[in-house]
Amino acid sequence: MTTERIAEFFRTRRPDGPCLVVDREVVRDNYTAFRRALPNSDIFYAVKANPAPQILELLAGLGSNFDCASVAEIEMALEAGATPDRISFGNTIKKERDIARAHALGVNLFAVDCHEEVEKISRAAPGARVFCRVLTDGEGAEWPLSRKFGCVPAMAVDVLVYAHQLGLASYGVSFHVGSQMTKVEAWDAALSDAKRVFAQLAKQGIHLQMVNMGGGFPTKYLRDVPTAEAYGQAIFAALSRHFGNQLPRTIIEPGRGMVGNAGVIKSEVVLISKKSDDDKHRWVFLDIGKFGGLAETMDEAIRYPIRTERDDDEMEPCVLAGPTCDSADVMYEKNMYPLPISLTIGDEVLIEGTGAYTTTYASVAFNGFEPLKSYVI
Amino acid sequence: MTTERIAEFFRTRRPDGPCLVVDREVVRDNYTAFRRALPNSDIFYAVKANPAPQILELLAGLGSNFDCASVAEIEMALEAGATPDRISFGNTIKKERDIARAHALGVNLFAVDCHEEVEKISRAAPGARVFCRVLTDGEGAEWPLSRKFGCVPAMAVDVLVYAHQLGLASYGVSFHVGSQMTKVEAWDAALSDAKRVFAQLAKQGIHLQMVNMGGGFPTKYLRDVPTAEAYGQAIFAALSRHFGNQLPRTIIEPGRGMVGNAGVIKSEVVLISKKSDDDKHRWVFLDIGKFGGLAETMDEAIRYPIRTERDDDEMEPCVLAGPTCDSADVMYEKNMYPLPISLTIGDEVLIEGTGAYTTTYASVAFNGFEPLKSYVI
Repeated sequence: MTTERIAEFFRTRRPDGPCLVVDREVVRDNYTAFRRALPNSDIFYAVKANPAPQILELLAGLGSNFDCASVAEIEMALEAGATPDRISFGNTIKKERDIARAHALGVNLFAVDCHEEVEKISRAAPGARVFCRVLTDGEGAEWPLSRKFGCVPAMAVDVLVYAHQLGLASYGVSFHVGSQMTKVEAWDAALSDAKRVFAQLAKQGIHLQMVNMGGGFPTKYLRDVPTAEAYGQAIFAALSRHFGNQLPRTIIEPGRGMVGNAGVIKSEVVLISKKSDDDKHRWVFLDIGKFGGLAETMDEAIRYPIRTERDDDEMEPCVLAGPTCDSADVMYEKNMYPLPISLTIGDEVLIEGTGAYTTTYASVAFNGFEPLKSYVI
Repeated sequence: MTTERIAEFFRTRRPDGPCLVVDREVVRDNYTAFRRALPNSDIFYAVKANPAPQILELLAGLGSNFDCASVAEIEMALEAGATPDRISFGNTIKKERDIARAHALGVNLFAVDCHEEVEKISRAAPGARVFCRVLTDGEGAEWPLSRKFGCVPAMAVDVLVYAHQLGLASYGVSFHVGSQMTKVEAWDAALSDAKRVFAQLAKQGIHLQMVNMGGGFPTKYLRDVPTAEAYGQAIFAALSRHFGNQLPRTIIEPGRGMVGNAGVIKSEVVLISKKSDDDKHRWVFLDIGKFGGLAETMDEAIRYPIRTERDDDEMEPCVLAGPTCDSADVMYEKNMYPLPISLTIGDEVLIEGTGAYTTTYASVAFNGFEPLKSYVI
């Protein structure tokens, strides 16, 4: 996943310290693959995955819409050239004054998952479109999905009726099957729930129009993942199964699937050592870790491909850790990482599949280390 | 722990969004308490706990030394008025060019825990003093201590002999009993190990002079913790027990213990909701979470005291979560947090004991949210 353009950048620019390089051509290819796989769905890029202005500008130019988590992200999407009608304020947890700011900027599509949020929107963005997020179980996802977002389908019906009563446009439902979801069937159960909410509301004369199928589309880390095409087919089949020939407008919100495989982090081996003479395993310390951008190694959840110039040599499992004085800054220990026996202090390592959820996760200055630098080429 | 000065700040300044306020008077009191409790130990403030310039200046003025994790932290300590002889480069994982920069800035005291690091220092800071970190088990600490730092005592002997052979000044040993350590006896076993390393090296004609007893001194969160005086007595007793009347120079590195209880974060309740009509527990969402500065709630490790203006009302356990679209951004769920039943959206909450390990941990811009603002008064 280190493209020739990225390799060329590292060869010629040689920036000091860890940095992420994102290849726009890969982002463009991913966008095209999603377009082809789900030609009838509108793409709302999840800005939180990587809000680099050049990525937002590229996607705005290609016709993408934007799923934003905050007013700052809405402003970035507008700055990149998106019109407000192409923006969704997709966070279910919003301050009322932020809803008002988004509304003043022209945004008219808001996520909710409870009565309280509906009340805020009815006051701060009267008449706006709302969609209600429904809880799913996230089974099969690599990044844990808690019960944090969404409500049970029965409550979603009540929430959308309430929105209607308060003068909002009850527009649809959303769900999220869990990030880095590798089971293409996962969308089926959620679409079944969505259809039931549609039917319940129709009985009350409220006709929903949209299903926001969220993100979850995986990027390839170490294991193979299904193609966008396979997802597209499975999702379209599930849609037809549940909605018949009355297909709603559908939205997808790829983040990781759009930019994950487009980025590579260059890092340096700072130290390789053992804890005792008879220690079976070496500790390899990089100049980036959990607090420098690789937060998704938390609980060893995401396992990035790591490339070195010595990958033809014999490998052995190592503990992999970051450079800070924090004992929690260890990336892979329970499930150690195979690295070349010949790996040496000062070697460069490339951490692939790091285009999503790295730059913005980096800490401001933990241990005095700078945040992750980023280049979009 | 919300001092009158902090309360006054919030009353009069009313900053928008979450922010940390640190009371310098509490830091001063903590410094004095450490001085009194361990009058024969040199205090090296762990800059990573909170590197705010005003805190570093205050401590520099009081005579503190500084434990630094990076060149940036060394520069901050110098900027605050510390001379290089009052600075320790305490990270065992250092790039050779960073060692050279520290050495060029006049720093002459370096941590090591392996032969490889000794080699780097012998090249980049010839003749410098080194101390070797010894592994301890961290039992009884609230923040997990992994095997990331240190080596077994037998290997520490070899490492210090090697340093001596390479022309470095083998100066001492260090250990860290684990952060937020509430067992005063924890220092005893580590000091016993330290003494054995001293004795082994003495047999080879190398006379160590210093024991760096690290940090670990707790701050009061919800549970009571022993006083600095109790720690001082236990540590002095252990020192005497193991070193007799040949007491080495001792160093302590308080971070959390110096600034933790001096800071209070003001946050706002963004949303209170349930996931279903028969949900037993409410979810309370704040405008700060795991990625906005409260990273130490990871695995629900650190449990901060939370104050509201309704604390006289009846309480009930709630799930407490942050404002981002990340499902991992939940602070207390397995062990729910009691909050007033009357708590309302828009209410202000004060999160106490947040002076350490908050500002620098905050993510750069995750979900577009600004890093935690900080005021030192």
